[in-house]
Amino acid sequence: MKIVIIGGVAGGATAAARIRRNDERAQIVMVERGPYVSFANCGLPYHISGTIAERGQLLVATADLFRDRYRVDVRAETEALAIDRAAKSVRLRNLASGEEYDERYDRLLLAPGAEPIRPPLPGLASPRVFSLRNLPDLDRIMAHLTTQAPRRAVVIGGGFIGVEVAENLVERGLATVLVEGTEQILAPLDYEMAAIVQTHLRDKGVTLSLDDKLARVEDQADTSIVHLASGRQLAADLVVLAIGVRPETQLAREAGLELGATGGIRVDEHLRTSDVSIWAVGDAVEVTQTISGRQVLIPLAGPANRQGRMAADNMVFGNTRSYRGTLGTAILKAFDLGVASTGLNEKQLIAAGIDYRATITHGGSHAGYYPGARQISLKLLYSPQGRILGAQAVGEVGADKRIDVIATAIHGGMSVDDLAELELAYAPPFGSAKDPVNIAGYVASNLLDGSLESIDWRTLAAMAPGAVQLIDVRSAAEVALGVIPGSRHIDVNELRDRLGELDPDAPTVVTCQVGMRGYLAYRILKQSGFKDVKNLSGGYKTWAWAVARQASTDDFELE
Amino acid sequence: MKIVIIGGVAGGATAAARIRRNDERAQIVMVERGPYVSFANCGLPYHISGTIAERGQLLVATADLFRDRYRVDVRAETEALAIDRAAKSVRLRNLASGEEYDERYDRLLLAPGAEPIRPPLPGLASPRVFSLRNLPDLDRIMAHLTTQAPRRAVVIGGGFIGVEVAENLVERGLATVLVEGTEQILAPLDYEMAAIVQTHLRDKGVTLSLDDKLARVEDQADTSIVHLASGRQLAADLVVLAIGVRPETQLAREAGLELGATGGIRVDEHLRTSDVSIWAVGDAVEVTQTISGRQVLIPLAGPANRQGRMAADNMVFGNTRSYRGTLGTAILKAFDLGVASTGLNEKQLIAAGIDYRATITHGGSHAGYYPGARQISLKLLYSPQGRILGAQAVGEVGADKRIDVIATAIHGGMSVDDLAELELAYAPPFGSAKDPVNIAGYVASNLLDGSLESIDWRTLAAMAPGAVQLIDVRSAAEVALGVIPGSRHIDVNELRDRLGELDPDAPTVVTCQVGMRGYLAYRILKQSGFKDVKNLSGGYKTWAWAVARQASTDDFELE
Repeated sequence: MKIVIIGGVAGGATAAARIRRNDERAQIVMVERGPYVSFANCGLPYHISGTIAERGQLLVATADLFRDRYRVDVRAETEALAIDRAAKSVRLRNLASGEEYDERYDRLLLAPGAEPIRPPLPGLASPRVFSLRNLPDLDRIMAHLTTQAPRRAVVIGGGFIGVEVAENLVERGLATVLVEGTEQILAPLDYEMAAIVQTHLRDKGVTLSLDDKLARVEDQADTSIVHLASGRQLAADLVVLAIGVRPETQLAREAGLELGATGGIRVDEHLRTSDVSIWAVGDAVEVTQTISGRQVLIPLAGPANRQGRMAADNMVFGNTRSYRGTLGTAILKAFDLGVASTGLNEKQLIAAGIDYRATITHGGSHAGYYPGARQISLKLLYSPQGRILGAQAVGEVGADKRIDVIATAIHGGMSVDDLAELELAYAPPFGSAKDPVNIAGYVASNLLDGSLESIDWRTLAAMAPGAVQLIDVRSAAEVALGVIPGSRHIDVNELRDRLGELDPDAPTVVTCQVGMRGYLAYRILKQSGFKDVKNLSGGYKTWAWAVARQASTDDFELE
Repeated sequence: MKIVIIGGVAGGATAAARIRRNDERAQIVMVERGPYVSFANCGLPYHISGTIAERGQLLVATADLFRDRYRVDVRAETEALAIDRAAKSVRLRNLASGEEYDERYDRLLLAPGAEPIRPPLPGLASPRVFSLRNLPDLDRIMAHLTTQAPRRAVVIGGGFIGVEVAENLVERGLATVLVEGTEQILAPLDYEMAAIVQTHLRDKGVTLSLDDKLARVEDQADTSIVHLASGRQLAADLVVLAIGVRPETQLAREAGLELGATGGIRVDEHLRTSDVSIWAVGDAVEVTQTISGRQVLIPLAGPANRQGRMAADNMVFGNTRSYRGTLGTAILKAFDLGVASTGLNEKQLIAAGIDYRATITHGGSHAGYYPGARQISLKLLYSPQGRILGAQAVGEVGADKRIDVIATAIHGGMSVDDLAELELAYAPPFGSAKDPVNIAGYVASNLLDGSLESIDWRTLAAMAPGAVQLIDVRSAAEVALGVIPGSRHIDVNELRDRLGELDPDAPTVVTCQVGMRGYLAYRILKQSGFKDVKNLSGGYKTWAWAVARQASTDDFELE
């Protein structure tokens, strides 16, 4: 059996190794357009700052390794031009020699990946404008950094790659502006969670320009001018486009393989395309989002690897394995913060028409009395029946762990009650007897069983002044550092003795720092005859991030 | 309604706060024998070294907080002497004044905890012998450290507390011997996993004396002599007993409440004792181990807190919630290592007569090309049908995360195939596209579907020399650093070309560093007609820890 694989990075490389383990006798040809197979795509931004010091570290597995260990016939710098499905052959071109030839296959795997989106705007051919998707892209950026010593950078796009590139440019000492077309960076997060990251990026010296888009790049002799749609102008010695990626589907499309509405290659549950001899994996295929059931593009390395392994089994053994869909678990390092998410966020749930509830909690990464504890902000989304739909976590330590736990719970079809009951590893250096995940489960359970009602910051912020009796139950010391306008201060410890100062018939909102004392205040008021009480989800902390501190555009000047 | 709670630390304190939230009008009396409620039991060892610098940090919630915020009538330094179940009253003694009085209850919660085991051996009344269970214990140790400036310490018992105390004594500069009665420290781990921790403790300067027991302590003028059962003698200026704890059940027993065979208080699924007006939680109760279904004692803070919350609901609302049992997820910091486990280990599975399979894998805490990656050793136990039964992880970074993920998977009744499919958060600073949990799932799936067979280090070590054809498929550079005696070296990359050197009919074991290349070698040999091939689980790495490096007793001399 002869298997040809188009694309030799995540899904393709994994499939090649797995096919070999499955079948010692298979003939395996792995075609890669670029010069390197199996390179560390996700590590590229970190070479800019020197965090990953050696370029060679980014070469995870070499072509030699694939040849020597797996007996894979690696064809690097080779482009697949066309598939002749009737003849079962692929037209290949050696990019070094220009030679073209046909390679027959019994089974074909498409793992071509995705390509950076380059909008049709004037000036993007500038030698100061770059993308970052592969090692040659990185080499070009590094050469520019070394030879031109740029001082000012503009990164276009506030997604994961954009934030990573901005961080590493700042770490290298460049004055960096991050431009994002919507009101927030990091689309997988909801606004108030992204706001935490935005605050942190600003603290670290990244200038943010939100709600503004790239219009054009104008080259001058010594620098370039980035013109934004708002009319603002940014001087830049280096521009990185990180607007997003689109699936590489030209080969599949021209071969007549079915594409989905998302533009990705359509595959069945066995990862097979509309041709019975062709499978496809990775960023180029559309997948079923596990929660919504919708077809989506989720260009992530983890799913690409798992798909590669599964396609390898299905190609050798005959469609024995089924892909259950992609949840979309993802994580980003943003300077000192871990920023992680899984499942659907609030915006996506609304767009998908899925009924949901949301809670925001803030807890310690481990016991507060042990040194080094850091706050984790955790947003949990769930159905009115308690099914977990998604989660987002932001914090310096342990955001990854909490999202991995919740992703596992979603995989197992668990409920928020299960989160409350989870028995996680606790010792003071690692967690708390009541882990932030347990607490999120507690709060969600309380909301669903009616022992707590909450209000979110956006709803409260939209209310007319005086529309509710807003009670801040924190200590006087906390209140001195900032309050929600219009709030009245009654320490929770005094609340029972000062009920007479309040109107039990007025709509009432209680708030504390993170929501815990507000919950007690809610219970006190409800059991004291107050008719309409709500606790502010996430407390003053979330309010402060989402409302008090955010401006869409930082000041910057054209030098 | 009047509720009396006996015990004001983990389960009792949690219950008090929850009862108040459930019912503003309940009268709540919380009785605590010690001077402090809700102190940081699990943090005590870290004050010895100064890691937790201030004693006051260990007071998590004060009696004042319980009074002011939760309106709980706290009676500290008050001992419960007897329960009159017919009269529904508890006899209390104020330990300061000696006054005794009766406190009536409608509902009673027992959360008395556990007490350190003090074996009936000569010399334990020495002023140089201590336990560590509460703040007064810690105060005594700190006073001894301050006034006597001990230089040599002996810790009796290699459980979690013993290891934590030994670590903190070493951090404080004391020469420390850890004495353990069995062949390994840390009973929740299997031998080869504990061996990693033992190697690390020795590297950090802890002297280990395994397979030896305390016989007696002999006081001399300036020091004490610890006599071990083997006859060895250790000079010690400070001795800490950390042999284990037993449930505090005297009050329950004398009141005629049912105890279980474990010695713990028996409770039903609602955490109610054999008296319909009395509930019990925490270290004093026996619980159902989730996997085995057996009644066990699991004295851990997390379950105690969850039980306290649940009992509070059941006491107020009438047994609405059911406790599903305790898995036994636990974690320990041992110097730089995280040491975590969940479910049952191999020893416990054998003891419970549960059929199981085991795999040991070693993977990086995150992508190897990103700085700071550390190895995680992961042992996974599962049924022949793939149900996850337990796991153990040891590593400098991220052992906690992997055990939390697997504990969540066990809670959800997931299989090893689910572990392989889990979509965990990946970016180079946080994980790998194939996480160690995924890899453990892959290996287990391979074993169960017959595409891989393995052998464990213990079985291999017990074989007669030459009984198997043992092939080390690592590189020459790795082999130069150490090999399993009797192994023959053939680099996996050369294996296909050197099959003629091997006997396809001989029982064959392949090994590499961690098991990955051994898996490929297994596949090559099986598909080349070798009849009986097995891959060494955990590779040379596990072998080296479990077999090559371990001595039961370090050298030490009586000064």
